[in-house]
Amino acid sequence: MKTWSKFYISTLRDSPADAEIASHKLLMRAGLVRKLGGGLYTYMPLGLRVMQKISKICREELEVSDAIELWMPHLHPVDNWEQGPRWAAAREIMFRADNAGANKGRSREPEFVLGPTHEEIITPLVKNEITSYRDLPKNFYQIATKFRNEIRPRFGLMRAREFVMMDAYSFDANDEGATKSYFAMKDAYKRFFKRIGVTAIAVEADTGVMGGSFSHEFMVPAEIGDDDVIYNEASGYAANREKATSALVPADLADAAPIGAIEEFATPGATTIAALEAAPYNVKGSEQFKTLVYMGDGKPFLVIIRGNDELEEAKLGSLGFTLTRAATAEEIEPVLGAKPGSLGAIKGSIKDQAALAGIFADHAIRLIGNGTTGANKDGFHVRNVNVTRDLAITKFGDFRRVRPGEPDPKNGQPLSVKRGIEVGHIFKLGTKYSEKFGAVYTDDAKQNHPMVMGCYGIGISRTLQAVIEQSHDNDGIIWPWAVAPFQIIVTLLDPSVAEPAALAKQLAEVAEKAGADVIIDDREERPGVKFKDADLIGIPLRITIGGKGLAAGIIELKWRSKKDVIKVPVAEAAEQIAAIVREMQSA
Amino acid sequence: MKTWSKFYISTLRDSPADAEIASHKLLMRAGLVRKLGGGLYTYMPLGLRVMQKISKICREELEVSDAIELWMPHLHPVDNWEQGPRWAAAREIMFRADNAGANKGRSREPEFVLGPTHEEIITPLVKNEITSYRDLPKNFYQIATKFRNEIRPRFGLMRAREFVMMDAYSFDANDEGATKSYFAMKDAYKRFFKRIGVTAIAVEADTGVMGGSFSHEFMVPAEIGDDDVIYNEASGYAANREKATSALVPADLADAAPIGAIEEFATPGATTIAALEAAPYNVKGSEQFKTLVYMGDGKPFLVIIRGNDELEEAKLGSLGFTLTRAATAEEIEPVLGAKPGSLGAIKGSIKDQAALAGIFADHAIRLIGNGTTGANKDGFHVRNVNVTRDLAITKFGDFRRVRPGEPDPKNGQPLSVKRGIEVGHIFKLGTKYSEKFGAVYTDDAKQNHPMVMGCYGIGISRTLQAVIEQSHDNDGIIWPWAVAPFQIIVTLLDPSVAEPAALAKQLAEVAEKAGADVIIDDREERPGVKFKDADLIGIPLRITIGGKGLAAGIIELKWRSKKDVIKVPVAEAAEQIAAIVREMQSA
Repeated sequence: MKTWSKFYISTLRDSPADAEIASHKLLMRAGLVRKLGGGLYTYMPLGLRVMQKISKICREELEVSDAIELWMPHLHPVDNWEQGPRWAAAREIMFRADNAGANKGRSREPEFVLGPTHEEIITPLVKNEITSYRDLPKNFYQIATKFRNEIRPRFGLMRAREFVMMDAYSFDANDEGATKSYFAMKDAYKRFFKRIGVTAIAVEADTGVMGGSFSHEFMVPAEIGDDDVIYNEASGYAANREKATSALVPADLADAAPIGAIEEFATPGATTIAALEAAPYNVKGSEQFKTLVYMGDGKPFLVIIRGNDELEEAKLGSLGFTLTRAATAEEIEPVLGAKPGSLGAIKGSIKDQAALAGIFADHAIRLIGNGTTGANKDGFHVRNVNVTRDLAITKFGDFRRVRPGEPDPKNGQPLSVKRGIEVGHIFKLGTKYSEKFGAVYTDDAKQNHPMVMGCYGIGISRTLQAVIEQSHDNDGIIWPWAVAPFQIIVTLLDPSVAEPAALAKQLAEVAEKAGADVIIDDREERPGVKFKDADLIGIPLRITIGGKGLAAGIIELKWRSKKDVIKVPVAEAAEQIAAIVREMQSA
Repeated sequence: MKTWSKFYISTLRDSPADAEIASHKLLMRAGLVRKLGGGLYTYMPLGLRVMQKISKICREELEVSDAIELWMPHLHPVDNWEQGPRWAAAREIMFRADNAGANKGRSREPEFVLGPTHEEIITPLVKNEITSYRDLPKNFYQIATKFRNEIRPRFGLMRAREFVMMDAYSFDANDEGATKSYFAMKDAYKRFFKRIGVTAIAVEADTGVMGGSFSHEFMVPAEIGDDDVIYNEASGYAANREKATSALVPADLADAAPIGAIEEFATPGATTIAALEAAPYNVKGSEQFKTLVYMGDGKPFLVIIRGNDELEEAKLGSLGFTLTRAATAEEIEPVLGAKPGSLGAIKGSIKDQAALAGIFADHAIRLIGNGTTGANKDGFHVRNVNVTRDLAITKFGDFRRVRPGEPDPKNGQPLSVKRGIEVGHIFKLGTKYSEKFGAVYTDDAKQNHPMVMGCYGIGISRTLQAVIEQSHDNDGIIWPWAVAPFQIIVTLLDPSVAEPAALAKQLAEVAEKAGADVIIDDREERPGVKFKDADLIGIPLRITIGGKGLAAGIIELKWRSKKDVIKVPVAEAAEQIAAIVREMQSA
């Protein structure tokens, strides 16, 4: 057990000006961390205890899923990264490290980078270690500091330059095994978040730059979150904004029959969807084709969506280009023959169709029976456009941003949207890294194959803050029992009086024996100060000893999450406290 | 409990060429670490378990001494270091970190260094946190990765670029408190090393660049050690080479009476102690004065020791110069009037005595009644020299290197010398850092005072290797019970047979319940391979189940540190194993 006077807790009345969100403010006010520099925080004794508890639970649940802990260096030889597949992009958010000496020639020194994740380290390690199918599968993890050269660190531990992450890497002999490893980790994540008392939703995610075959994010719902989750709780569907899709277009939708021949009409100055919606044109957005021009690895391509839809740029990733960006007006005109505002994909209307890498259309345009699009002639549009008859489409796909209320793709229930904080991520990675680093194994017929990998991350320090964001009130933090820095605070009203002090110690010992961590607030302070501090630092259960209550043979129990005070006769206190702790510990 | 097949252990028959010492070879062969780059090691699952156990015991013992754990960033703003007292020297062994991006201007980015220790971080932190004497003393520690830009990393974890260190910093209101904190930590260190099963001797050490008032090193005796320990076990005296002193000169030694007038004599070409010892001069080294010239902060000074003694340069630190180095011949001649080989300190013989910062003499020259020294005239010496009468000495001090066999300063017992590995260090630091960073507190009379600091380090990863260096044989490591990655290995001779496998599991559970960590070797391998691996990775107790023994109702216990095998009837196995574990756990 600890005592407040010999431990170190420093609470603040006010939070610093740079703390914008509740959890960041409470991190500071409750003295969990102190800022050293932008995105750099010292974990104070109270904050470190929470992080250690979260880490311990994480280890336990990963090991249930047969993950094996190791610990890799923070400094990585730059060679490893140059050999890997993502150096060009990743280095922009990485730190390099070399000699700090005043007079040493920099070029002759070995050069290192500080690891943001460890694919480039573990893959060559496993290549050297594991050669036979007999040693597969293996799943290695570590809980370690990662470094990210954030230009604008903010929100405390949410976006920091140093942060603690669990990162795991699974190696399997084949795709089936890798899928099994993936879902074993998904289960471990679920158990982990449940045990630490956090609601985290597994949502389908885009594989993005990691280039794997599938992926889930774990999101803690929170208004201040950076990400949107699209979901229907009853259906069990959840995906992030970049990945979310809907059943807006019925699978059995028949192609619309043409109404009449296409007809060009003048639309001087009307270069937006809104302008065509207005008089004198009065074309609904949902009946317009919006033609967007992008560059894919240097070549222009078209994306056609409905006028009332928005493009979800991340979905262009499915087209297979390495680098995608919006085209400039200068790049558009020579190919389409018109400026943005009058673009379209009517067969034969494109000036230099051979220059295009493709014309990709969102499924939802099939809902348009009789639409309007640009004529590829400045100041002109075309009406009576039929998708099948008139548009030169290379391929249909899912490119639009889903909207709340649309039917979910699982059961057709209406989708909702909420904000979330990403606290974990799992990727089925495939052979991208194992092929690059030559991590192959020999099967029982002496044939070599690249190992099939998965990679997994949990933001441990970010999760710590997400717990606070999800569990606080106006008075401070409300720690879930499992991760509280102390589960019980014994508030001693008269610390200098021997008898209550002895009782406090005795009850603290009882609680610790039953499995709780206890701190005795033995400061010479007014009760109000002590109660306020206990609430601010969020200790789940407060035991108050002293004053009139004690004189009447009573101690008080109060849960941080509840209003009422439970009065317990001194004679029954030990037994009741032990029972409470045992119950909470087994919950 | 773990099984070998689901855990990951990879042993090697041979150690890599760069492993020069036994412990480094065994680190690699037993698969405790794998090298990523020079001085950078991945802790493999087995090695990490040992490090976590050492860290846990360290935490427990520090907390007994009221040290409080926190965790500071690895990246330090360079400003903190520039403001501190040792940047100029320390930066030469430090890493700097900045943007790794290809196109970003380096000068506009914030610059960081990677911390080798954290005085420059904790002192400003405590300055902001603690303002009143009521909050003192406090002692904060962390167990964290440190970075050192070693030019020549070697000996595995002994001299690495990344290493794990416990570093602690105590803050007291006054000198008396700081001394108390110092000795509380010294006691914690002793308990720690005892618990992990390592012999570590606390030796008096020089305060060196840290500039504190006193200091101890903790040394693990080992032939491959970098440092000399001078000691007498019975007396309890021990000091490192730089600090060691002896009672060679009796405290009550009377000044020798002069024998005759000084007498100059020609010594053409005789410019060394050895040359004067030879014919025709025949002056014993112990009767010669050796006059050495050093520069202290740019000004020359003399050090006089006996001809048969060696100067211990570190002891010049007591003279209070910031920077000390040997003078060049060019710097010597204008001041003394002669070249090295004929130098001396006879009164009146020094050409420019005013140029000297002092003439410092080692106590041992007082043993010379009638000596010989240089005449400050090339090719001439002087005999019949009496220390008191003839030499112009500013101050006596301890400057010579102690030799084995000399009487120890405590009880006059003969000193011995042995090699050691430094695994810990404690400094009473004083107010050097608190004054520099303004870490002051207000006393009960509203007066401000700088806090009095101590700083403390234990090389956790180095200790791990020192354990191996101290505890191994030709077959492998012999882990002390407390830090063994597993305390027990259950070697299953027929892993595919159900009955012995069930017995193995049952006995492993019994042992774990009693407090041991157990691994079952369930590999399909020959018994010889399994026994060899178990010996190599050093598991303290092996339980062998199977084969003829089991058929006869017997299992075998074998201690790694002993030769004999203990045969135990299956029926008694659980009880005996539980008893052994309980006894070891309470040892």
